[in-house]
Amino acid sequence: MAHGHIILSAFFFNPQGDHRMSWRHPRAPGREILDFDYYRDLVQAAERAKIDTIFVADHVSIWDSVKSGVAHYANARLEPLTLLAALAGVTRHIGLITTASSSYSEPYNVARFFASLDHISKGRASWNVVTSAMEEEAKNFGRDGNIDHALRYERAAEYLDIVKALWDSWEDEALLIDKESGYFADPARVHAINHKGPHFRVRGPLNVSRPPQGHPLIVQAGSSEDGKNFATAHADAHFAIFSTKEDGVGYRKDINERLARHGRRPESFKILPGILPIVAGSKDEALERQEYLQTLLPDQVGIDLLSSWSGLDLSAYPPDGPVPPLPDESTFNGGHTSLNRVRQWAKQNLTLREVARRLSNSGSVPTVAGTPVEIADQLEDWFVAGAADGFNLMFPLLPEDWHAFAEKVVPELQRRGLFRTEYEPGTLRDRLGLPRPANRFAEQRDNERAVS
Amino acid sequence: MAHGHIILSAFFFNPQGDHRMSWRHPRAPGREILDFDYYRDLVQAAERAKIDTIFVADHVSIWDSVKSGVAHYANARLEPLTLLAALAGVTRHIGLITTASSSYSEPYNVARFFASLDHISKGRASWNVVTSAMEEEAKNFGRDGNIDHALRYERAAEYLDIVKALWDSWEDEALLIDKESGYFADPARVHAINHKGPHFRVRGPLNVSRPPQGHPLIVQAGSSEDGKNFATAHADAHFAIFSTKEDGVGYRKDINERLARHGRRPESFKILPGILPIVAGSKDEALERQEYLQTLLPDQVGIDLLSSWSGLDLSAYPPDGPVPPLPDESTFNGGHTSLNRVRQWAKQNLTLREVARRLSNSGSVPTVAGTPVEIADQLEDWFVAGAADGFNLMFPLLPEDWHAFAEKVVPELQRRGLFRTEYEPGTLRDRLGLPRPANRFAEQRDNERAVS
Repeated sequence: MAHGHIILSAFFFNPQGDHRMSWRHPRAPGREILDFDYYRDLVQAAERAKIDTIFVADHVSIWDSVKSGVAHYANARLEPLTLLAALAGVTRHIGLITTASSSYSEPYNVARFFASLDHISKGRASWNVVTSAMEEEAKNFGRDGNIDHALRYERAAEYLDIVKALWDSWEDEALLIDKESGYFADPARVHAINHKGPHFRVRGPLNVSRPPQGHPLIVQAGSSEDGKNFATAHADAHFAIFSTKEDGVGYRKDINERLARHGRRPESFKILPGILPIVAGSKDEALERQEYLQTLLPDQVGIDLLSSWSGLDLSAYPPDGPVPPLPDESTFNGGHTSLNRVRQWAKQNLTLREVARRLSNSGSVPTVAGTPVEIADQLEDWFVAGAADGFNLMFPLLPEDWHAFAEKVVPELQRRGLFRTEYEPGTLRDRLGLPRPANRFAEQRDNERAVS
Repeated sequence: MAHGHIILSAFFFNPQGDHRMSWRHPRAPGREILDFDYYRDLVQAAERAKIDTIFVADHVSIWDSVKSGVAHYANARLEPLTLLAALAGVTRHIGLITTASSSYSEPYNVARFFASLDHISKGRASWNVVTSAMEEEAKNFGRDGNIDHALRYERAAEYLDIVKALWDSWEDEALLIDKESGYFADPARVHAINHKGPHFRVRGPLNVSRPPQGHPLIVQAGSSEDGKNFATAHADAHFAIFSTKEDGVGYRKDINERLARHGRRPESFKILPGILPIVAGSKDEALERQEYLQTLLPDQVGIDLLSSWSGLDLSAYPPDGPVPPLPDESTFNGGHTSLNRVRQWAKQNLTLREVARRLSNSGSVPTVAGTPVEIADQLEDWFVAGAADGFNLMFPLLPEDWHAFAEKVVPELQRRGLFRTEYEPGTLRDRLGLPRPANRFAEQRDNERAVS
């Protein structure tokens, strides 16, 4: 897009890397995942490489729908808002994105957290809005099961509107701090929002003044219809999943049409597809590394995973045998995308264990593996074709894949003029070429003035 | 009490100091209250002085029940959890206490925040449990008015029990991270809490492993009957308000009786009365400084304040005139303590303005003013008499009163052997001489074993 360089966002959910079993790798961190120093080192390395943002994903539960999940999956981790706030204090430039659930929190609290993080970081905060889809999450918040998908997004839209109104509830000029006159604020520029909607009632104003970015950057990460509609209506950046450059170009076209419906231009919306970057001496070496990670999946977890994705109880089937007949899509109540991936592999005559191992890779994000030059080639190719404004870097193994990318791929991109060599001044929005949002209350008053 | 030295906790709610109008003082901070550096400097100074904890209070609304509040009161501030997390990253020893409302948040989220802050800070996190009493707060969270006082505390007790259970949901030995066997955790030591109570349903387990302190330190700050009962049942430390050493001795006696009902010993519960310390060359100079702060109260705010505390509309009365007849306590619906303070001053023939200025001091916390030696004398006197385990230092003007205390009073207390000269190793609980709480699930299993 119009913006001059590739946007790079360094991601993690599992602090050991973005494979379900990364934690078992001999070079993965152990107990240091609970130690702030581990994250400080990671993020300061990213900042040395001039990476745009780090992105810490989140769930509000452990993963125990699969019985073997508690034993074999790395369920314990730090909470990301407190972690990012701590990181804000020891970094100066890098953007700080984290997930917060609009289904299981209060809009007044979330508005405060991100407004405050934006002040503390001098304009580097970003909220990845999620609606939370796991049954395990619902049960930690007084519910028996998930809120219905469409309703979750309707609620999320109302929730986000409240949060943005609260960020606007102090106009930029509201804060006077005039010691002489005794006016701390201009009452005409501090607004109750008096929101009364189907899901929430919030009076306001916020007790944090307007964030440096106006609104902290809004990110959205779901590629369902509801997700894409929500993103193009409300978000600034979008984490997407597609496998080829052609898919990316098509995805951008579809997104642009949706943006136009909201009167938005393509440049106002950054698309960052997820990739799994593996820097290695050769493609073969990269593949070997990936296959090694797959061997770390205990059979039990693989079978449990496959059972839950296929809706069948496969615990009695031999791991080296074939996948039994799968349910028909029309009557299947689970995730259809997952089921169809399993079906595809089953057709290739893979064994249960082999299918399970493939499932253990995170989602369907493409691997971009090879030498630094080969990786830079592919990123450049997608970027120049308009398939991506940048990339969500989902490293299979931390910290080494993160460091390898920062130290080897970034310089290659810099040499090609595709990536910054110094941070530009300003906020995260400034650096991404995204405008500072207007204040709805200031606009209202201007409009009223124009009319009268 | 048994513990060897005075506990010192450096407090703020208003980052300009603990007078409603401190922000107007020529030496008070201006826009730097939104800047992390301001707080880093304050807290690092406290850490140099070996202060036990900082305590950042909080409300979840601005103060606009008084009409002039928006114009003249310093309502904009940072959110304290994000602030303390950022401070955790740039400090090593000092305890980090903050308020979170049990009425307007979800127990799963609050359990995560404090567990994570405890990991990030290596055992220095502390939660001041409040039930939130302002109408303005209720209206930011979907309610028309406050939850009834007794019900708030009943809810808070259930809430706190859930949070403690979630902190226990990973036993200390649960985390195996055994790369060889593939066991990340021992499933027998990771527990769903399956809480189903009158106010909450929470399944668990938490997705953060057990905090270094077992449970982050629990603080409570209300001195109502409900507040004291809640504190002695559930808390480790208690911020109290009393005016004299004799009151403090009586307060401790009352608290010890309540503790005994819960099978607790006096040493398990630290009482920290609030004081307003003013270090000056002489008592007169200290008094002058305090009176100067009072002159900063705009008449409008004073009259509005007095109106809301007395239940009368005083806006038409001359500020230099007397206080009109006050309502009878038996029919008064507001705070009785406040009304009686106003009545006492009215009897002394103070004018409206004079009464209003006295009200503008924070609460009824005693001023401890004078030279460093005089202040140390008073702290020692209360401590040795058993009236206080330490003090909640509510500085009228920041940052200078904070720095003066750290640089002048602390060395005097150290000379007397009443305060540490180096931080002891360990967690905040270790330093306060408070035991690490047992894990309820581990205890359950031990009991079951003993029975069988």
